[in-house]
Amino acid sequence: MDKSQSKITPVILSGGSGTRLWPMSRQEKPKQLLSLTEERTMLQLTALRAADDALFDAPFVVANADHAEIIVEQLAAVGVESPHIILEPFGRNTAPAIALAAVAADPSAILLVMPSDHVITDLQAFHDAIFRAAPLVADGWLVTFGIQPDGPETGYGYIRLGADQAAGVHAVDAFVEKPDAARAEAMLAEGGYAWNAGIFAFRADAYLGALERFQPDMLRAVRTCMDKALRQDNIIRPDPDCFADSPSDSIDYAVMERAERVACVPVTMGWSDVGSWDSLHDISVKDDDGNVLRGNILALGTKGCLVHSDGPRIALVDVDDLIVVATHGDIMILRRGDSQKVRSITEALKRK
Amino acid sequence: MDKSQSKITPVILSGGSGTRLWPMSRQEKPKQLLSLTEERTMLQLTALRAADDALFDAPFVVANADHAEIIVEQLAAVGVESPHIILEPFGRNTAPAIALAAVAADPSAILLVMPSDHVITDLQAFHDAIFRAAPLVADGWLVTFGIQPDGPETGYGYIRLGADQAAGVHAVDAFVEKPDAARAEAMLAEGGYAWNAGIFAFRADAYLGALERFQPDMLRAVRTCMDKALRQDNIIRPDPDCFADSPSDSIDYAVMERAERVACVPVTMGWSDVGSWDSLHDISVKDDDGNVLRGNILALGTKGCLVHSDGPRIALVDVDDLIVVATHGDIMILRRGDSQKVRSITEALKRK
Repeated sequence: MDKSQSKITPVILSGGSGTRLWPMSRQEKPKQLLSLTEERTMLQLTALRAADDALFDAPFVVANADHAEIIVEQLAAVGVESPHIILEPFGRNTAPAIALAAVAADPSAILLVMPSDHVITDLQAFHDAIFRAAPLVADGWLVTFGIQPDGPETGYGYIRLGADQAAGVHAVDAFVEKPDAARAEAMLAEGGYAWNAGIFAFRADAYLGALERFQPDMLRAVRTCMDKALRQDNIIRPDPDCFADSPSDSIDYAVMERAERVACVPVTMGWSDVGSWDSLHDISVKDDDGNVLRGNILALGTKGCLVHSDGPRIALVDVDDLIVVATHGDIMILRRGDSQKVRSITEALKRK
Repeated sequence: MDKSQSKITPVILSGGSGTRLWPMSRQEKPKQLLSLTEERTMLQLTALRAADDALFDAPFVVANADHAEIIVEQLAAVGVESPHIILEPFGRNTAPAIALAAVAADPSAILLVMPSDHVITDLQAFHDAIFRAAPLVADGWLVTFGIQPDGPETGYGYIRLGADQAAGVHAVDAFVEKPDAARAEAMLAEGGYAWNAGIFAFRADAYLGALERFQPDMLRAVRTCMDKALRQDNIIRPDPDCFADSPSDSIDYAVMERAERVACVPVTMGWSDVGSWDSLHDISVKDDDGNVLRGNILALGTKGCLVHSDGPRIALVDVDDLIVVATHGDIMILRRGDSQKVRSITEALKRK
């Protein structure tokens, strides 16, 4: 889409719960609504990434109904005016969430689907990738943006890149499930793979056409619940009973892995899904001692720590490589490198 | 004092601030008013140590005026009825504090002076020591109870034991200031020394007589401020202006090191002054992993930690040998063995 073409419509998915960033991220205020990497929240940063009104129309934000108020507040606070906010009565995974926006948008609208909780530090690279995808998107292709791997990550799905369709745009040969370590190493060594980051571009009608073919029940449920939606100002509340009829599935399984004319634009843009406290430490600017400190923190002789507090003052002396997070009356302490163990805490607390 | 003699009058000193147990211990609620070793507070444990009314009269508690209410509450909660509470308008160290009680008490009363923030686990040994001291106390001696050293501690003053005055009761040869490590080792090797724990027994008139001789200004100021004291129920408020005239000094410097007829009863009674978080870990009952956990704590794979919270829930995974204390909107984290570094925190916070 060169700049003379119609503008792009951002679709921001804010349905996740980000449990791996417990205790900061919780059902009532998940990761995307938090300030983790800077003063602005992940949602605000996402919206601002597609806020240049020479290029972008007002976004659709598909979110948990419980977060309506805070989402409106956060977007207004960074000058994102008149977003269309579609409030899911409950989560049905990404395929129906995107369908809600695709049904609400103009059929010819070019949708840029973005999770609301990722970091992208090289905005120009992101925009360039979007422009590279433009001609195929206009032609009805479903495009995914693939992250150039910089390690044998086992936490992401991979995309095997096929033949060039245009400069820097590949047909997708295959989607590969989250691999084990050996398989991840092999793909990295072989080359020609990208991480699936869940960022997509397509025309609304192209997506709905694919749903019609592969997920007719989903499309029917989504169309019906949007027909019966309550609308007030820019807020759309799909009918819960009809939305409940939709199967729950990810866009990857429901559509991308089945459709033809699926392309991938590999891009290096300082991307991170901030998938854990360790990942947050990795991507954050550190002080001279390798610490990342947010909140009221006194760190004496402390090295390599991530310390986040949104309330209590935390004083540390001569401790190394800890992750300490204090919020909501909870304090979590574990070693850096162990942040996957957050799950053992949340599971133990559930059992209690 | 055999049991047929007059009862003993406990004098509990509650003027300290216990800053080494920051952030739990603070000016407004110092160490002695906290539950550190069990559900009961240090003050309650101290009072209960001398609450057998076959042996003890109602205690005098000399305390900071700011703590009047909480002291009355805490004592009532463990059934210590009608304590005499003397509220210092400000601290003047131990010699004047004890003098306030000695002036208020019957001149022939036998006073048992106890800091309010120590642990004594062997109550029988303590009582036995008191009985051993009885004849000399009745005869006008000033008696101090010395702790049998179990290591070359540099944090306490030492007492060099002199000739036996009675079974298990020694004249005091000398008081030794807090030693350096080499001197402490030497005293331990030589034997015949005890730690000065600040626990004393004497007749009120013997103490006042010593003050008259060595600290006439102190005695005059204390007598005057008690003459002008406000008294309501069992609460005595010495006149602040007159109390301000008293020199500030410890009983050791002001009296014990100068007086003749000073005796020491060495005793092994599971004593600790709980002088630091490390010391609290040392004396506490530990779980199978060497942890001491108080409050709402979830410890997974955690070893050798002391974790105290009086509010927030603390979750730890696979960390070892940490001291974590959460209270009052403050969280402190340091390594076990480093608890003397609490001071570097409180000093850094002051500078801020």
